[in-house]
Amino acid sequence: MRIALLGGTGDIGQGLALRFAHDTDHEVLIGSRDPEKARDAVAEYEAELESRGVEASIKGFANEMAADRADVVVLAVPPYYAGDTVEAIEEKLDGDQILVTPAVGMQGDEDGLHYHPPKAGSVTQLVANRAPDEVPVVGAFHNLAADALSNLDDDLDLDTLVVADDADAKSTVRALADEIEGLRSLDAGPLANAAEVESVTPLVINVAKYNDGMHDVGVTFR
Amino acid sequence: MRIALLGGTGDIGQGLALRFAHDTDHEVLIGSRDPEKARDAVAEYEAELESRGVEASIKGFANEMAADRADVVVLAVPPYYAGDTVEAIEEKLDGDQILVTPAVGMQGDEDGLHYHPPKAGSVTQLVANRAPDEVPVVGAFHNLAADALSNLDDDLDLDTLVVADDADAKSTVRALADEIEGLRSLDAGPLANAAEVESVTPLVINVAKYNDGMHDVGVTFR
Repeated sequence: MRIALLGGTGDIGQGLALRFAHDTDHEVLIGSRDPEKARDAVAEYEAELESRGVEASIKGFANEMAADRADVVVLAVPPYYAGDTVEAIEEKLDGDQILVTPAVGMQGDEDGLHYHPPKAGSVTQLVANRAPDEVPVVGAFHNLAADALSNLDDDLDLDTLVVADDADAKSTVRALADEIEGLRSLDAGPLANAAEVESVTPLVINVAKYNDGMHDVGVTFR
Repeated sequence: MRIALLGGTGDIGQGLALRFAHDTDHEVLIGSRDPEKARDAVAEYEAELESRGVEASIKGFANEMAADRADVVVLAVPPYYAGDTVEAIEEKLDGDQILVTPAVGMQGDEDGLHYHPPKAGSVTQLVANRAPDEVPVVGAFHNLAADALSNLDDDLDLDTLVVADDADAKSTVRALADEIEGLRSLDAGPLANAAEVESVTPLVINVAKYNDGMHDVGVTFR
């Protein structure tokens, strides 16, 4: 399967790129608004993988080109770019592809980070509203600390919550997540349940802020 | 220390009563609007503890009387009674006591449960707004499955997130939580961070709904 990570030069994109390339046989495409930046990131990720004896062939493209070539398109962009990124790629998308969104709207103050969803109710729902009707949207990978994901020495031992209205798309993305070692996917229901999933992201950052010795905080469910 | 569990006949009250009586040396008081109901619950909890060889002396009172006698007062009532319960007991409270709130506002539909905070922003903040100024308010015990808590055979292995503006009150409540075996308290910051803590409660219920074999779901942070 071909997985495109749009905004794949950012921290969550880097983490997912390294994990998919290291742990699975799927083909990873890095997308960026600037294809040159995408190719620079690819060189960096390949060097990191090579230092661990993993021969990975990652490719870098402009976001539109990456989306066009992929089976699964991950919007690893900041929340305020999520809608615009969907618009930029929508002509390249069709009903055989899956759009995945990990972004979360947050606002910070002196106390910590607070969940700040867009008017759609969640970034996941905003992406679903903006995506072409025939393209299934899946919310996943929201609550993973980027630094833990990017550090291949970290065992993760984390859960990721997956929401979607399309059952097939949800199982495809859950299977991809489960292929990352140390990551377990859990079903959190339909897209309407995305807000409760997204709001864990500011929470884990607050837990890291207030508890000595806790970094790259993530969550598991029992 | 004397811990009053107001609404202590309900499911979260039962769980906390059994755990505090079983795992700690603190004195447990059960409060209810109806003192007769409180005493019935006490008889039930004592029987359960006795069947495990634990001789506990729990006492049942009307909420006001329980609050008057306690060092720590836990509002183990449904969210829509939290404000009224504070009003009912406020004349009994003083600045040497701590008010603890575990309640969460939720609304359900066919998709699952959704976080539904009061206008104050969180039930924790609502309680803080309604409590006398000199009484410190601590949010804790929000995300614990009541059935897991009430089942003394369950090892828990769970975290509870604690929010408060008063550092001393927060440490006291964290220490109490840490005395429950299998429970670890984490600092989630000031009261302003309560909404992100409370919204984990509908999430864990949704995870239980959508994942086969998962019941009494709770959360741990790494």
